[in-house]
Amino acid sequence: MTVQDNFRLAMRRYIYSVSIMSNKDEKGNLNAITVSSVTSISMEPPSLLICINKSSRIHESIRVGTKFCINLLNKDQRELSNICSDEDRYDQRFNDINWNNDNIPFLENAQSNIFCNVEKLTSFHTHTIVIGLVEDSKFKNTIDTLTYVDGEYK
Amino acid sequence: MTVQDNFRLAMRRYIYSVSIMSNKDEKGNLNAITVSSVTSISMEPPSLLICINKSSRIHESIRVGTKFCINLLNKDQRELSNICSDEDRYDQRFNDINWNNDNIPFLENAQSNIFCNVEKLTSFHTHTIVIGLVEDSKFKNTIDTLTYVDGEYK
Repeated sequence: MTVQDNFRLAMRRYIYSVSIMSNKDEKGNLNAITVSSVTSISMEPPSLLICINKSSRIHESIRVGTKFCINLLNKDQRELSNICSDEDRYDQRFNDINWNNDNIPFLENAQSNIFCNVEKLTSFHTHTIVIGLVEDSKFKNTIDTLTYVDGEYK
Repeated sequence: MTVQDNFRLAMRRYIYSVSIMSNKDEKGNLNAITVSSVTSISMEPPSLLICINKSSRIHESIRVGTKFCINLLNKDQRELSNICSDEDRYDQRFNDINWNNDNIPFLENAQSNIFCNVEKLTSFHTHTIVIGLVEDSKFKNTIDTLTYVDGEYK
């Protein structure tokens, strides 16, 4: 087995929470992508990071000073997670009636919404590490977070 | 509520897997710290990142070119997770008989072990984002990963 194969299998033991990153570009186009790599960095200042593949459609709209939302999904949002990770279904991403697209697009029924401003971008080979300063957050009281482990939702 | 309070409550909805980062410094001293922020970045090259508080004891031993291990914990390792996140119990961190300290220290009974070489460090206020290139990984077949959500193990 290669280093990659072993790493992939070791990472399949991680249980992670599923989120959708969403934004609106300077022309008003809406973007959304399923992400598994949301990590809080600090409380001083409140900040988080996400790793975004440079080949994804949302990538070019992410610049220092632009805004985005991290929508932590609940267990009822599996299908939307599938849609927002499938390039062939790109046109279906904003069909869900729970999107509020007035300003920064966000899912009104998500487990949490974390609104950020891009503070710093760090390139690393295929991916960009996007660091956001948190400006506002919303959350539901009941916890019913969608998780993914070993290639399956759980 | 402040931006921090709301962000903290939004993040408490995240379910995350618990790991211990371990290394041996240039003088042979062993370090270990519980971390929640392990994120895979890419497969080309195989790489991951962790956010480490600059005030933690392990921080000064992490330099470009040094090695470390990420030990993904199983549900039986809660107590070790508590020890490795408690400054008052610093001397107890390597009492566990499952540590193998011959080379890079690692937990032989962990869910996964991911061995890395520090490739890049990015400073962000209170924390350093540590990017490691993966050199080797081990894993158990049965999946029994320790998770943490809303301030509790689960």
